[in-house]
Amino acid sequence: MAAEIVNPRSDSGAAQDGGAEPLDSFDAFDPAFALHRGGKMAVQATVPVRDKDDLSLAYTPGVAKVCSAIAEQPELVHDYTWKSSVVAVVTDGTAVLGLGDIGPEASLPVMEGKAILFKQFGGVDAVPIALDCTGVDEIVETVVRLAPSFGGINLEDISAPRCFEIERRLQERLDIPVFHDDQHGTAVVTLAALRNAARLTGRTLGQLRAVISGAGAAGVAIAKMLIEAGIGDVSVADRKGVVSRDREDLTPVKRELAELSNKAGLTGSLESALAGADVFIGVSGGTVPESAVASMAEGAFVFAMANPNPEVHPEVAHKYAAVVATGRSDFPNQINNVLAFPGIFAGALQVRASRITEGMKIAAAEALAAVVGDDLAADYVIPSPFDERVAPAVTAAVAAAARAEGVARR
Amino acid sequence: MAAEIVNPRSDSGAAQDGGAEPLDSFDAFDPAFALHRGGKMAVQATVPVRDKDDLSLAYTPGVAKVCSAIAEQPELVHDYTWKSSVVAVVTDGTAVLGLGDIGPEASLPVMEGKAILFKQFGGVDAVPIALDCTGVDEIVETVVRLAPSFGGINLEDISAPRCFEIERRLQERLDIPVFHDDQHGTAVVTLAALRNAARLTGRTLGQLRAVISGAGAAGVAIAKMLIEAGIGDVSVADRKGVVSRDREDLTPVKRELAELSNKAGLTGSLESALAGADVFIGVSGGTVPESAVASMAEGAFVFAMANPNPEVHPEVAHKYAAVVATGRSDFPNQINNVLAFPGIFAGALQVRASRITEGMKIAAAEALAAVVGDDLAADYVIPSPFDERVAPAVTAAVAAAARAEGVARR
Repeated sequence: MAAEIVNPRSDSGAAQDGGAEPLDSFDAFDPAFALHRGGKMAVQATVPVRDKDDLSLAYTPGVAKVCSAIAEQPELVHDYTWKSSVVAVVTDGTAVLGLGDIGPEASLPVMEGKAILFKQFGGVDAVPIALDCTGVDEIVETVVRLAPSFGGINLEDISAPRCFEIERRLQERLDIPVFHDDQHGTAVVTLAALRNAARLTGRTLGQLRAVISGAGAAGVAIAKMLIEAGIGDVSVADRKGVVSRDREDLTPVKRELAELSNKAGLTGSLESALAGADVFIGVSGGTVPESAVASMAEGAFVFAMANPNPEVHPEVAHKYAAVVATGRSDFPNQINNVLAFPGIFAGALQVRASRITEGMKIAAAEALAAVVGDDLAADYVIPSPFDERVAPAVTAAVAAAARAEGVARR
Repeated sequence: MAAEIVNPRSDSGAAQDGGAEPLDSFDAFDPAFALHRGGKMAVQATVPVRDKDDLSLAYTPGVAKVCSAIAEQPELVHDYTWKSSVVAVVTDGTAVLGLGDIGPEASLPVMEGKAILFKQFGGVDAVPIALDCTGVDEIVETVVRLAPSFGGINLEDISAPRCFEIERRLQERLDIPVFHDDQHGTAVVTLAALRNAARLTGRTLGQLRAVISGAGAAGVAIAKMLIEAGIGDVSVADRKGVVSRDREDLTPVKRELAELSNKAGLTGSLESALAGADVFIGVSGGTVPESAVASMAEGAFVFAMANPNPEVHPEVAHKYAAVVATGRSDFPNQINNVLAFPGIFAGALQVRASRITEGMKIAAAEALAAVVGDDLAADYVIPSPFDERVAPAVTAAVAAAARAEGVARR
């Protein structure tokens, strides 16, 4: 796989095209700039440092005893430092929001935003680590080296296909959770919404055929998770059409996907794959013509998650679909990763899980779906990010699943 | 220099000898352990994330404008992220307190302690980064890669001689301050105390001959800083005696020191060098016989800074010396780095200094010495760490010096 993975920033620079807004759009009085001035986060001491006695416990000489104890009994690091509550939010700035490869510094506002969402929704401390390197080997080595300080690694906004290999290699090397949220967070929330949509319409996942538009980080992860959860069939389309075994232009990740998915053996365009399909999941940023949506099976689900422009406008989708979801907060059924990642890490850290398994992700999706409960409706298949039941439910489910799967260390 | 620098952890392990206390000394009810439970620090959001509107400014879609602006105008990262207020406290765990090479995890309590001192005394956010590597190249590359996220790098508890090359190479590669506190923090506070001791006894630095015991990080930095500040003469002794030009067993760092220091051309033992010396500065952890202290010049200064056991007990030192200082909080005149590093970084960050110059360190020492003012006395040549005038004075002096030296960026 390594041979196909190049340094995106040493490329022609095409990834930057259409990225940043023109500078004349910069307005320091814009409320977003006003809010961001000075950053969005800070560190605080959780123990007193008011006088000599405080200092002699929190620092020298008292701290030496704690260091010595950890040196002799390494697992004590989880009890006597903040390791067990802190996650590194690691990016290389190559796939930031819809802006593309804007580099590490320019990605920092997103990473800080992610960090404060971790804290606000999951009680998890998080530190932005935006790396000045884009090679797979460099990123892997760097994260391995800084891992002793953290209880988990949240990979963020790293472009495909490098993100897949980076995550896999880090998971092999480290004994703490490594989780690429653009993949798995999206997949968990999508699965939760899909479970509830199926329940609403009296169907099982096994009865559904899904088509995913987009074979990047999110598309690949959603496909794998739907398969794991027992979807009837799922096909994934990239810009060249359905990812199928007969294609000869596939990356290793897409070749694997061609083996795992598309039982129906579809070939050709996304539009043709949608004919008779039960579920559309858009994570591509493209658009889908109304005629293709009209060709879907009766009672279809349209999850058009591209931001800010859904692949199918919700008004159009509603003409044909039983359930419509988007990535936007101004429409019902927002598929928002913040529903998943804070609780997933909080649960994993709570039991000191060595990794985040498929079972833990499925448990997170089920817990998230269950929050909706009896209020289930076509415009309510997924809870609001501000529903205070969400994070505790996901946390508890993930912790329990970690124990059940034998990856918990307490 | 690289040829002489080895990976300390791949060595015979001798550095660990006498390190950690025996495990039966571990007592979870000890107040130090009780205080450390769960760690000593946390992250907090400094902007609200209560509802959809907050989220749309602090995260998507509002954050995208800020990212785009930084992508086009990179210096805006200082205005619109926490970069300008956050320092990485970087260690490899090879020289932690007096415990030696205890590794990254076991060093974390010290790094967290350092981080909360940064916050408490300087208002600087700091993040512990304990690295799982000890090679010079590895450490340098790792820190370079994570530097975009930070406004400064505080190197901590990295063993000599690697610490010298790591700092030098990072300073060459990065445009943010890189400061090895074990070297320069100690040197700044020592110089401040020495200035006041000289003032108290009506002498100038140029009239003093100093002898330093210990040619590690602190000893080398103190010697260089005293020379920079105009000391009459300074000789440094390691375990084999005075570092002098005729010795053939010197590391590159000590060879440089032999050129810079020891104008008197002393050779032989520490004890013989002390005969007639005006100043003893101990950063070695060894002991100095009373007879050697008795042989010093009249009105001598004894700064016996080893912790927890000063090289000369203060009671003994007082029999011969005009001014006595230690590294301990339970004797007068504590030479404590916390007097320097919070203000030095706060001042450097305030003006976005690209580095910390000799002039900025000298300014810090002078500001620190000046806090003592008219209260100067033999038992008060250096302020208390809890003197609230200290950090603001150091901050202002360092910021002004950065401007004067042309390294400030605002």
